[in-house]
Amino acid sequence: MAKAIMEFIGAFFLVFTVGMTVIEPGAGNLAPLAIGSVLMVMIFAGGHLSGGHYNPAVSLAVYVRGKLSVNDLIAYMVAQFIAGAVAAGLVLFLKGFPALTPAVWQIVPALITEFLFAFALCFVVLNSATARGTSGNSFYGLAIGFTVLAGVYAVGAISGGAFNPAVALGITLMGLTSWASIWIYLVANFAGGAVAGLVFRALNPDDV
Amino acid sequence: MAKAIMEFIGAFFLVFTVGMTVIEPGAGNLAPLAIGSVLMVMIFAGGHLSGGHYNPAVSLAVYVRGKLSVNDLIAYMVAQFIAGAVAAGLVLFLKGFPALTPAVWQIVPALITEFLFAFALCFVVLNSATARGTSGNSFYGLAIGFTVLAGVYAVGAISGGAFNPAVALGITLMGLTSWASIWIYLVANFAGGAVAGLVFRALNPDDV
Amino acid sequence: MAKAIMEFIGAFFLVFTVGMTVIEPGAGNLAPLAIGSVLMVMIFAGGHLSGGHYNPAVSLAVYVRGKLSVNDLIAYMVAQFIAGAVAAGLVLFLKGFPALTPAVWQIVPALITEFLFAFALCFVVLNSATARGTSGNSFYGLAIGFTVLAGVYAVGAISGGAFNPAVALGITLMGLTSWASIWIYLVANFAGGAVAGLVFRALNPDDV
Amino acid sequence: MAKAIMEFIGAFFLVFTVGMTVIEPGAGNLAPLAIGSVLMVMIFAGGHLSGGHYNPAVSLAVYVRGKLSVNDLIAYMVAQFIAGAVAAGLVLFLKGFPALTPAVWQIVPALITEFLFAFALCFVVLNSATARGTSGNSFYGLAIGFTVLAGVYAVGAISGGAFNPAVALGITLMGLTSWASIWIYLVANFAGGAVAGLVFRALNPDDV
Repeated sequence: MAKAIMEFIGAFFLVFTVGMTVIEPGAGNLAPLAIGSVLMVMIFAGGHLSGGHYNPAVSLAVYVRGKLSVNDLIAYMVAQFIAGAVAAGLVLFLKGFPALTPAVWQIVPALITEFLFAFALCFVVLNSATARGTSGNSFYGLAIGFTVLAGVYAVGAISGGAFNPAVALGITLMGLTSWASIWIYLVANFAGGAVAGLVFRALNPDDV
Repeated sequence: MAKAIMEFIGAFFLVFTVGMTVIEPGAGNLAPLAIGSVLMVMIFAGGHLSGGHYNPAVSLAVYVRGKLSVNDLIAYMVAQFIAGAVAAGLVLFLKGFPALTPAVWQIVPALITEFLFAFALCFVVLNSATARGTSGNSFYGLAIGFTVLAGVYAVGAISGGAFNPAVALGITLMGLTSWASIWIYLVANFAGGAVAGLVFRALNPDDV
Repeated sequence: MAKAIMEFIGAFFLVFTVGMTVIEPGAGNLAPLAIGSVLMVMIFAGGHLSGGHYNPAVSLAVYVRGKLSVNDLIAYMVAQFIAGAVAAGLVLFLKGFPALTPAVWQIVPALITEFLFAFALCFVVLNSATARGTSGNSFYGLAIGFTVLAGVYAVGAISGGAFNPAVALGITLMGLTSWASIWIYLVANFAGGAVAGLVFRALNPDDV
Repeated sequence: MAKAIMEFIGAFFLVFTVGMTVIEPGAGNLAPLAIGSVLMVMIFAGGHLSGGHYNPAVSLAVYVRGKLSVNDLIAYMVAQFIAGAVAAGLVLFLKGFPALTPAVWQIVPALITEFLFAFALCFVVLNSATARGTSGNSFYGLAIGFTVLAGVYAVGAISGGAFNPAVALGITLMGLTSWASIWIYLVANFAGGAVAGLVFRALNPDDV
């Protein structure tokens, strides 16, 4: 239960920061810095409690890698999605519904970029936060958070740059992307997480 | 006494950097990067001496968590508030009184956002700088400083983004926010610190 | 083989991020932050597997320093160049061929700046990721990634700021620089790597 | 001798990056990020060799703190000033002499701000890189480099933001500040370093 609460807190601040920095007046072209930073700090705060996933695709990757029970996987995902919805509601309360047409992404490019950076994100998580070869390090939060920073700068214009189904739910509820596009995130992000788990196992055969 | 001097030095540079980067000509939209960075470096410098709070709400959180005596709590707060006032005076000497109307925030949104990020800040402090599960890490300053960076980008337009009663005193003295709003910071920031202490204790039952 | 795959993954995301952030609409003046960050996170993820070079000049430097076999040197370089070409192809698929004239650099200034920051980059790698005096540290990825960040801001206008022959191949394939200039990168970057290896050996006589 | 060469390398890249990012076309308002980053990476690379000062005021502070011999103090300062001059020459070769009037600062404000951030910088160095209470940490380069980042954003408009006599020499040779102002840096920066050494000793009585 403490672990699910921690996942709620972390995912809440992540999605809340996404909404507050992306909807104008927000952080402009520095929004990805704020988003990557808040993910980093929540991982540094909560990693010792829950692992600091805050992302259903990451939880799936850790499950595939063999470091999360199926019960925890379900509890984490429930907490993360609820947090995304609650954060979206608070952003809308504070900012009002944004006066813009929700983005509709080109499907193939969006699938590719969401898959690629969800894979990168989950691969960085597995290697920096669950691998024997990096155990005891002090960089895992920085590595994970700044993967999202780089990804949003790189492909935000193609797919919004969620890499996280709970973020996808949040930005859809906020009216930033259309409901017609949410399946892109779900498919591509979970696929990225699963593939990251498999690639990790293949590259770290002695650590599974 | 050495600890209170360290708290004075850290809070002074924090509030001084806030004023110098926020009042034009300052750092523009990169002010939060400078502010988060100076907090980070002062924590890395002074953490081993005083704990590196530089924030009365953080000191309250550490007190609630059980890692600060009441005598130190009082001494720290006095040093932090004096530092905020001295820094504000020096900013005004260097820049002159800013030619702008002090901000008056909408009360409920400002209370919410100051509470949320003061909670986040204090929660990150407790978990990264006082928890058994993260002892010996090298990231506590980065985690704490960049929480402020993310928070100012996220909610600076709603409440100014102090998350710190000593900063609130400083920016009020500098004429950036109105005296009529200072209670918002005091109430919301101390509440955030106290709640962070209680949540930490609930999530870390074996570490209190 | 796992090591070469890791080098492919890291170099792919580096060159992919270069293209996606540099070609408009990209990350504007924050592209170097994204590029330095993605290099950092891939090093933190893959350093324990392959060393995390993602750069033929770095691999050459590590070889000269005596910490890479000639077989690995060749496998790494092949993987890195293939990754650069694949990433360039995907960028072109997602963005189309950029409507600009490939840059032609002034030869002597470009040689100097590509040499200098390739030297800096490889020197930072050798000292932060292979030296006895810094073993076990948690900063190597940050140090290496942000060397590129600083270098692109410093000399991007003079030479594009590759410091990496695989990146040079990628940006040439993307039409950002001309084929007539690619020798500048190859000569200057490999020279920077080799000199860094020699200087490391001279400054660390007890660690070779 | 290896130590002096390391100090030359680090100070060279610091002053070179200052010139290349500050003189247009440079890094615009992100110059402080590049400058703080290059200082950070050179400290992470060279700290285990020379201590990673790259700044005569820092060397003075470490001498006052009792961790540098007078012979090394002199050798370091000579190497740092030569590096500043060589870097300035190369910047002028690459960019030409900038078409602007060298800045003449208001004396008292410039003395205050150069003193304050040179003190902060040296105080951070002493506590993060020479103190028993933080030995073995992985953050010293980040702490020191980002002190300069914060300082340049905070007071660059008041005094240029050198905090380093070798940087002051470099920017004076580059025509960014006037020869009539160089004494301000020398006096304020060395005073900041000396005071930092004394304050460190007062606050760390068991560690001198």
